[in-house]
Amino acid sequence: MKGSGATLKRMYRPAIKHCRECGAHVSYRLPDDGDTKNRAICTQCHTVHYENPLNVVGTVPYWGERGEQVLLCKRNIEPRLGKWTLPAGFMELGESTEHGAWRETQEEAGAEIEIDGLFTLLNVVRVGQVHFFYRARLTSDRFSPGYETQEARLFTEDQIPWDDLAFKTVRETLERYFDDLRSGKFGFHVSDIG
Amino acid sequence: MKGSGATLKRMYRPAIKHCRECGAHVSYRLPDDGDTKNRAICTQCHTVHYENPLNVVGTVPYWGERGEQVLLCKRNIEPRLGKWTLPAGFMELGESTEHGAWRETQEEAGAEIEIDGLFTLLNVVRVGQVHFFYRARLTSDRFSPGYETQEARLFTEDQIPWDDLAFKTVRETLERYFDDLRSGKFGFHVSDIG
Repeated sequence: MKGSGATLKRMYRPAIKHCRECGAHVSYRLPDDGDTKNRAICTQCHTVHYENPLNVVGTVPYWGERGEQVLLCKRNIEPRLGKWTLPAGFMELGESTEHGAWRETQEEAGAEIEIDGLFTLLNVVRVGQVHFFYRARLTSDRFSPGYETQEARLFTEDQIPWDDLAFKTVRETLERYFDDLRSGKFGFHVSDIG
Repeated sequence: MKGSGATLKRMYRPAIKHCRECGAHVSYRLPDDGDTKNRAICTQCHTVHYENPLNVVGTVPYWGERGEQVLLCKRNIEPRLGKWTLPAGFMELGESTEHGAWRETQEEAGAEIEIDGLFTLLNVVRVGQVHFFYRARLTSDRFSPGYETQEARLFTEDQIPWDDLAFKTVRETLERYFDDLRSGKFGFHVSDIG
């Protein structure tokens, strides 16, 4: 997840102050089109500015005959500098959720993967985000992490630094992964994260 | 999907011209934080403005012993005025994908539902959107559609107005629904829509 200050700002998203079309001040009020929510509306050109949830896309890169090891990245940027995460970041325009997950895995871990399928879909309502994690088979155990990552390493379940994970959605996804690994069948899991 | 002009604007999303923080002009360039994509950056206060895909959330409301009828809404707003759609709209801050799907079904169809589970996840890369449709059991066959809908009606597969559907993702979702209904087993379907 990229850009320290930028990422923090996007998580807490301050109110819009000016119109992106003309630069005049906005005020928050109900639009005239039947909408039932207050929106930032330009006081000069009347453009309505919407604010919507963001998607975070990533992978569970696995290695070993049964997939008993997963790749984690130690964060080199805020937020959660020094904590461990699955490779993930904000979905960009011009890509699908799957392509975004693949791209983030390249950028953060420099890992070669083949994506299997969507594994978890997690709503994080409090911060206005939806997180998507795909299971992805590593085709090499050599990694070349980018500047956002201090270290990229494989972990078995009992080696995972459970107390030093960066995000609740990473913990949830890893728990589901190892549960499913034990049961011998990988499902698709949807849940809400408080 | 709400707000005629507003919806069209969000689909094609014109470039950002002014900073939402201070109102000064922005220029598109690479940020200094290692980012690899051009972003709208304020020429005065240097705030970086990101643009990301939007989520559209909706339902397949079904009725009948086997779920052989589905509820469609005839659109009373642009885009695709007069065309038929499943109830769906932009996900809002403060709600989960499932809650958003439920809300849109209330707003567009005034239908009482119980949501089963996520049925399709469709990337529409060209317009920067991800569409989510949940299967939802109707608990009544009386509807009171809102101002966005001219008419809300139940259709069996052979009654569906296939040539007058509003969106490709609606067609894809309905095709998957009736395929799964015939096979006797509802899956979860992920695909990209061109």
